[in-house]
Amino acid sequence: MIIPYDENNIFAKILRGEIPSHKLYEDAGTYAFMDVMPQGQGHCLAITKAPFRNILDVDQSSLSAVISTTQKLARAVKAAFSADGVTIIQFNEPAAGQTVFHLHFHIIPRFDGVALKPHTGQMEDQNVLAANAEKIRQALASSS
Amino acid sequence: MIIPYDENNIFAKILRGEIPSHKLYEDAGTYAFMDVMPQGQGHCLAITKAPFRNILDVDQSSLSAVISTTQKLARAVKAAFSADGVTIIQFNEPAAGQTVFHLHFHIIPRFDGVALKPHTGQMEDQNVLAANAEKIRQALASSS
Repeated sequence: MIIPYDENNIFAKILRGEIPSHKLYEDAGTYAFMDVMPQGQGHCLAITKAPFRNILDVDQSSLSAVISTTQKLARAVKAAFSADGVTIIQFNEPAAGQTVFHLHFHIIPRFDGVALKPHTGQMEDQNVLAANAEKIRQALASSS
Repeated sequence: MIIPYDENNIFAKILRGEIPSHKLYEDAGTYAFMDVMPQGQGHCLAITKAPFRNILDVDQSSLSAVISTTQKLARAVKAAFSADGVTIIQFNEPAAGQTVFHLHFHIIPRFDGVALKPHTGQMEDQNVLAANAEKIRQALASSS
């Protein structure tokens, strides 16, 4: 059974500019921004612009575009925070931990000996998000 | 710094047929098989055939191919096990939990109320792996 896409999910509102986000990157098919409840410093998200619920219903070209943006962000956050590694996570349906039903890839910088914080944990300070976003944008700019 | 690819990692040996695997799917650029230390029933892996360490060094076409195979597997495991969801995880470097340094995506069926088991936990019984692999292959066959 395919569950229909909900046009009023929070990422759809971000894409329409109805809710602010710390924008990192945008191209024809994708958008990237900071996760407001980060599981680690520099945790960000890559999403499709087209309306897909998750990996189960996305089309090939949109999937290819969003994983390419995910890769760009993975490289950028590693450089921006001198991270030791990067974890990529993508949740499908509530049983997997999906809470926003618009396809998104989590990109989380990792540091030796530092565990991830819980998914959908505490809201980060906006100034911290803005400062981390600027570091990532600079890393993206210097790599292109 | 780009760390060189090690031709003797276990997935390279699987691709060369030097180590057996429960094969699920194969195309020109990718290969999929059962994870022998599953974090949940039906946990499988999609890998590139070409030698990449992780998402940080993979080229665009191989990345696009392996995420497409990941999607095929996500749909198949959800059908094969009547799963409630699917978690996709991809680790980069030891700080993120990467233990085999050949690019791979984890595809893990999820069930309401069932937590993931630890990464690189206990070795699964080969008969269980074989039976689950057969269910996934049947789901792949009936969807194509």
